Amino acid sequence: MPQATRGYAATSPTSPLGLFHFVRRDPRDNDVVIDVLYSGVCHSDLHTVRNDWGGTVYPTVPGHEIVGRVTAVGSAVTRFQVGDTVGVGCMVDSCQHCAACAKGWEQYCEKGMTGTYNSTDRVDGSATQGGYSEHIVVRQEFVLKIPQTLDLKAAAPLLCAGITTWSPLRHWKVGPGSKVAVVGLGGLGHMALKLAKALGAQVTLFSRSAGKEADAQRLGADRVVISTDKAQMKAVRGQFDLIIDTVPYAHDLNPYTATLATGGTLVLVGFLGMQEPAVNTTSLVLGRKSVAGSVIGGITETQEMLDFCGQHGITADVEMLAMQDINTAYERMLRSDVKYRFVIDMQSLKSAA
Amino acid sequence: MPQATRGYAATSPTSPLGLFHFVRRDPRDNDVVIDVLYSGVCHSDLHTVRNDWGGTVYPTVPGHEIVGRVTAVGSAVTRFQVGDTVGVGCMVDSCQHCAACAKGWEQYCEKGMTGTYNSTDRVDGSATQGGYSEHIVVRQEFVLKIPQTLDLKAAAPLLCAGITTWSPLRHWKVGPGSKVAVVGLGGLGHMALKLAKALGAQVTLFSRSAGKEADAQRLGADRVVISTDKAQMKAVRGQFDLIIDTVPYAHDLNPYTATLATGGTLVLVGFLGMQEPAVNTTSLVLGRKSVAGSVIGGITETQEMLDFCGQHGITADVEMLAMQDINTAYERMLRSDVKYRFVIDMQSLKSAA
Ligand SMILES: [Zn+2]
Ligand SMILES: [Zn+2]
Ligand SMILES: [Zn+2]
Ligand SMILES: [Zn+2]
Repeated sequence: MPQATRGYAATSPTSPLGLFHFVRRDPRDNDVVIDVLYSGVCHSDLHTVRNDWGGTVYPTVPGHEIVGRVTAVGSAVTRFQVGDTVGVGCMVDSCQHCAACAKGWEQYCEKGMTGTYNSTDRVDGSATQGGYSEHIVVRQEFVLKIPQTLDLKAAAPLLCAGITTWSPLRHWKVGPGSKVAVVGLGGLGHMALKLAKALGAQVTLFSRSAGKEADAQRLGADRVVISTDKAQMKAVRGQFDLIIDTVPYAHDLNPYTATLATGGTLVLVGFLGMQEPAVNTTSLVLGRKSVAGSVIGGITETQEMLDFCGQHGITADVEMLAMQDINTAYERMLRSDVKYRFVIDMQSLKSAA
Repeated sequence: MPQATRGYAATSPTSPLGLFHFVRRDPRDNDVVIDVLYSGVCHSDLHTVRNDWGGTVYPTVPGHEIVGRVTAVGSAVTRFQVGDTVGVGCMVDSCQHCAACAKGWEQYCEKGMTGTYNSTDRVDGSATQGGYSEHIVVRQEFVLKIPQTLDLKAAAPLLCAGITTWSPLRHWKVGPGSKVAVVGLGGLGHMALKLAKALGAQVTLFSRSAGKEADAQRLGADRVVISTDKAQMKAVRGQFDLIIDTVPYAHDLNPYTATLATGGTLVLVGFLGMQEPAVNTTSLVLGRKSVAGSVIGGITETQEMLDFCGQHGITADVEMLAMQDINTAYERMLRSDVKYRFVIDMQSLKSAA
């Protein structure tokens, strides 16, 4: 029997999020029912709520950085049992058969992955709804195990911000001796610093303004380079094997490609849109450099990242929030006024009238 | 004692090439003296002659697709002897000590490689002059062995057009089963088709207009896709592991990035300048795709390419030219009126009055 639940939903691009009653499906054989404990707040939530990318279907319940407790499992579930601490990220399903899925790249599923929210369930065609809710029901293949050693509330952002930066670090083989730079110090950027450092890289933060040195170093940066200072930028020309660019809007990439080493890659993880101003290909051609993109990560590598974080004691720096304060939090997030990720304590919703 | 030689040089950006008397240095201990038999004609020659990239020092003798015969060697030369058939490509020296040189990537030498022409000799500071000349003197480390089985005149373009397309094919690990596409059917493009096919890839040519099918298939293409035909482009969405883009001017990359497979790379080998119109990052991010650049190749991989061509009987399709006709050839090259590379028979210069 479908389970009545409550969440916070937007009902139009301009309405604030508010309480929303809906139902979660009765678990199928391969489903895990999760009591949501914590839900991180991602820029994508806000983009979807405001229909910035088009295609938002209302009402929409955002949230794809979910940590919770298993309260029931379907009859075919083998990997989880009641009481397990689990996570759900940006995907809840994929075709499971295409070449991408076969490689463990469900995020690039050729049939399109099923998003945790604002997407369509592959079985019953219903709208998926995200983690700003009391419960969620997800097929076991898309449920992650959260290491017991981690602070659960601070682990939630690993499910999006963590894997989004981990996947390129691994794909481009970052390890001891690698020189990695990170552009932007927000939710993604602060995770990139922590993960790159833990992988053994020498880590640089590019920042547009001074004053972030102490925080950056605490998070794992060996050095901060002020990207608006031409002398500082010149001093790091040709240095970096990988630059993880987390900036969520169009910006000039040319000062950064100049700092790539021969064969280096600048990977965009935060910006969808036209690459303007134009990239000068000269630096690319004469240095065999690449400008690439990357989105989240596959399920296997997400589990690998969570296990790595468990071993290294890595979580996000979070500011806790009551569900009722989400609209204020969005305004602050737009001003980058958060260090470095908001996480909703879902107890606040459960205890609400 | 320096050797008097004759070549064809430009004396200004607007003057036609004409006869030029100059001297080649007396061979140093590690030098090889080469009697030039054939010299391919590359777009870079024309760009340099006309100072399109700035920095041209006149008079300048172009030519960096050189095949010739060894006539003398310095006392320390171990790899060559008089009578050997040899080649010289785009470089005649590099620092030999930096990280790039240590990897065999002399083309990306951190101190800057020494170009075959319009560059400065690292030892005596003299201007380097290229292959449109009777003789050339090059240190042995930058002299290549030309397989005996190849038609020498048609082998000359391997030294630039060949290695320029070979290097990305190898760097991005093209082999049996790879899906490769080539944009543009000129000197570079026709070599890309031949080499990709010989490496075992499934090969597609993107062409802006119909009529090239027969030639493309003869050169190694399994298929021609008309890039201005939206239905044809849609039919190859998400297909290619590697696209080698040889187009020498700014053009829209978005129709091509759409045809890359997840994790695929579009590599620019022919265009230095601003990447306009802008690339849409959405396709890159949501498909972990890259836009990269690449220039020529290292000495070791150039020898590898020549040996591969020897084994597979691969040379360029060439149209032979007398030195005296170079200015007409440039005009035809600008109209893409050559199938597919002009090569100068240097005997024409030697027999001139
Ligand atoms: Zn997210
Ligand atoms: Zn799939
Ligand atoms: Zn060339
Ligand atoms: Zn070097």
